Amino acid sequence: MYLVAGTSKLTCKGREAAAICRPQGSDAVVAHCWYRRKREATPGAERRRSTVKAEVPVTTTDERVLWVDAPSRKYPIIFRNKPSLHDSELFAPHISGNSVLIVTNETVAPLYLHRLREGLSRCPQVDRVEECILPDGEEYKTMDSLRAIIDVCMQKRLDRKSTLFALGGGVIGDLTGFAASVFLRGIPFIQVPTTLLAVVDSAVGGKTGINHPLGKNMIGSFYQPHAVIVDASTLKTLDPRQISAGIAEIIKYGLICDEEFFNWCERNVSKMVSLSPGAIQYAMERSCQCKAAVVAADERESSGYRAILNLGHTFGHAIEAATGYGTWLHGEAVAAGMVMAAEMSRRLGFIDEQVVRRIEAILTEAALPVRPPPSMNVETFLTYMAMDKKVERGVLRLVLLERLGKAIVTANYERQVLVDTIEYFRRLYQEQPENYERRLAHLRPK
Amino acid sequence: MYLVAGTSKLTCKGREAAAICRPQGSDAVVAHCWYRRKREATPGAERRRSTVKAEVPVTTTDERVLWVDAPSRKYPIIFRNKPSLHDSELFAPHISGNSVLIVTNETVAPLYLHRLREGLSRCPQVDRVEECILPDGEEYKTMDSLRAIIDVCMQKRLDRKSTLFALGGGVIGDLTGFAASVFLRGIPFIQVPTTLLAVVDSAVGGKTGINHPLGKNMIGSFYQPHAVIVDASTLKTLDPRQISAGIAEIIKYGLICDEEFFNWCERNVSKMVSLSPGAIQYAMERSCQCKAAVVAADERESSGYRAILNLGHTFGHAIEAATGYGTWLHGEAVAAGMVMAAEMSRRLGFIDEQVVRRIEAILTEAALPVRPPPSMNVETFLTYMAMDKKVERGVLRLVLLERLGKAIVTANYERQVLVDTIEYFRRLYQEQPENYERRLAHLRPK
Repeated sequence: MYLVAGTSKLTCKGREAAAICRPQGSDAVVAHCWYRRKREATPGAERRRSTVKAEVPVTTTDERVLWVDAPSRKYPIIFRNKPSLHDSELFAPHISGNSVLIVTNETVAPLYLHRLREGLSRCPQVDRVEECILPDGEEYKTMDSLRAIIDVCMQKRLDRKSTLFALGGGVIGDLTGFAASVFLRGIPFIQVPTTLLAVVDSAVGGKTGINHPLGKNMIGSFYQPHAVIVDASTLKTLDPRQISAGIAEIIKYGLICDEEFFNWCERNVSKMVSLSPGAIQYAMERSCQCKAAVVAADERESSGYRAILNLGHTFGHAIEAATGYGTWLHGEAVAAGMVMAAEMSRRLGFIDEQVVRRIEAILTEAALPVRPPPSMNVETFLTYMAMDKKVERGVLRLVLLERLGKAIVTANYERQVLVDTIEYFRRLYQEQPENYERRLAHLRPK
Repeated sequence: MYLVAGTSKLTCKGREAAAICRPQGSDAVVAHCWYRRKREATPGAERRRSTVKAEVPVTTTDERVLWVDAPSRKYPIIFRNKPSLHDSELFAPHISGNSVLIVTNETVAPLYLHRLREGLSRCPQVDRVEECILPDGEEYKTMDSLRAIIDVCMQKRLDRKSTLFALGGGVIGDLTGFAASVFLRGIPFIQVPTTLLAVVDSAVGGKTGINHPLGKNMIGSFYQPHAVIVDASTLKTLDPRQISAGIAEIIKYGLICDEEFFNWCERNVSKMVSLSPGAIQYAMERSCQCKAAVVAADERESSGYRAILNLGHTFGHAIEAATGYGTWLHGEAVAAGMVMAAEMSRRLGFIDEQVVRRIEAILTEAALPVRPPPSMNVETFLTYMAMDKKVERGVLRLVLLERLGKAIVTANYERQVLVDTIEYFRRLYQEQPENYERRLAHLRPK
């Protein structure tokens, strides 16, 4: 069993948002989280700053636990720094039935499937460990893959007590979570993310789904896992492109709700890129903590607050869909999308150019693209952006930066500013194509 | 706008379970509802009888409203006795966005699509009425049909405020509800049931889903509609087989939770078969009321109580799957399944033979089959029943009759009794095949 060694709670307006386990005697820093709950908003006080004192030590310990207290389920994110997938005691407390199914892909399976299989087989209650291995890549986040998982569930006669394990990155996590949410109208699932992006973003918060040829994540559900179990040692086998993609989402948290964390990221980006244990552990925990607080306040995006997590995503999803899923990694598309959102925020007078330059600089240092593909023009962007889930009655709401460390979701902008923003990047390319392409050089051929 | 003329509430342990609109001055009878909430159960008092006084007048009026107060959403079931699909005032209060999509099938479309389209087009907020027409039949309740609906949603650029309308029977309702629950992770939908079975069963309660080749309703979600709108005049175009199938579910409510209603059904079965307005209206309302109370107490089947609604369904689903979806109507399979569940309850000493005979008699009078297909043996039944969603850790829980008017969900039976029950019907066939087949003569060739 894991040790919970002292707990401090994040409280948002009386609501327990997330709690972090703090090993005694560890150094601690203070994280700041923004939140808004629409129902409770009072005129003129739409958003308030809550100094959420969650103690996040910059140390590496064997195990640390952070709780996500979503309205529909409270569950732990368990961080381990040493190889732990074979450790049945890590998994046993979270499994209720006697059969489990590991869903993974052809890249992850040779690396970690046997270890997780070993760990799960040793759980005293588990009689059967089944597996489903899918092809690797965003282009397989489809209804066909969903059907493949469900077929295995049926053929292996899983029941409502069975647990699905998502062993892999965001694609595997989103697919497995969606399958778990609809098989027998919902069975338990556990996220075992093996990419940095999945740890800090997709594995936490309960958004599951698949892509449609016309748009990303268009089909899915809100469905929380029973636990998120992070074996940070698995990150060591990541391709550098995937590490960078994860760092894009980490930087996002600083931008949308935590200026102090953004400043920390600026100072530590090279440590994150090299997966320096202290830095990456801290970055993961602080990111998960930010996400947990947002999810606790607005699990189903009903107040609109949760949409701030989508900074750069509306532009980014358009890039992913237009270039063909899998060509740009999700984090890469989000990086370029965040630069576009920042540029548009500048044009609306929210932030000054120096902030845009800082964002470009940190993303560039993280080996991320900071320009959209030159092949995409205004029409292409607007066509794909029109499919965004934040469109209501034909109006696209965008996530923009009101300032560094504060995102807003708004439909209150002139459409021409959006068009000008996209055209600005087109012009940059036309004026200096070589210079422009250098800003994309980080996008190595897959 | 519709008139709500006096409301009485069903209260289950302080919880508002359902409320019924009672036109002033109408005659009323008292419905009894059983409920159990596991969390609140005290030892020795697992189930209590709650005399829920819901006033159900045996009169026909133009419009009556019954509320379903599920934990996730409270919504009305609106009954109209005269043709109303063209009436925009019936629909407008329940639509939030400016675009709607009607999902229906090739049988219903020529009859009612133009009327509903007219009604929705006239709603002041609605700019666009799209349509998706699927082939008719249980055999099309598949992932391909789900994909077809989602494709239309994407192509027509529906957004999160758009509303799906399910115009048809249970297949259309389950498919449309499932599509609504996963498109953009959930958009509003409204049930417009046009079969008796859909009115009294599938349109109410939020179970959505599709079939898998190996089992019925294996993939789906719990997702409540925003409203259920019943134009009872549409029942007049139903095939007699479909009317009987609906009556099977009506009789089920009497069996599982309302002995008095069962007695009423015995006296009025011929009136129901002929769709006599007063009788069928009363039967629909009392059925919906029973279902609403069960759903309010256990929306997601988490306490297990909701499973009582599945009396006859485990046997019935096996019949549907083994004979090929669409060969037996759902209600027909449930009728034969209820006889099997009753026979097994008798063998366990819960009920005596006279009760089994009464059940067979009323179902026979409703032109329903009371025997399983002679082609199915013990192995076939057990294979399909092993896929049932009520299986946990290899143990199948069954819904049985503790007495007339009271169902229980139990795994506490000898497997041999289940085997003996199935074999009993096999033996009946072998002994007197002609007599046996006469009990299936109600199953007219499709």
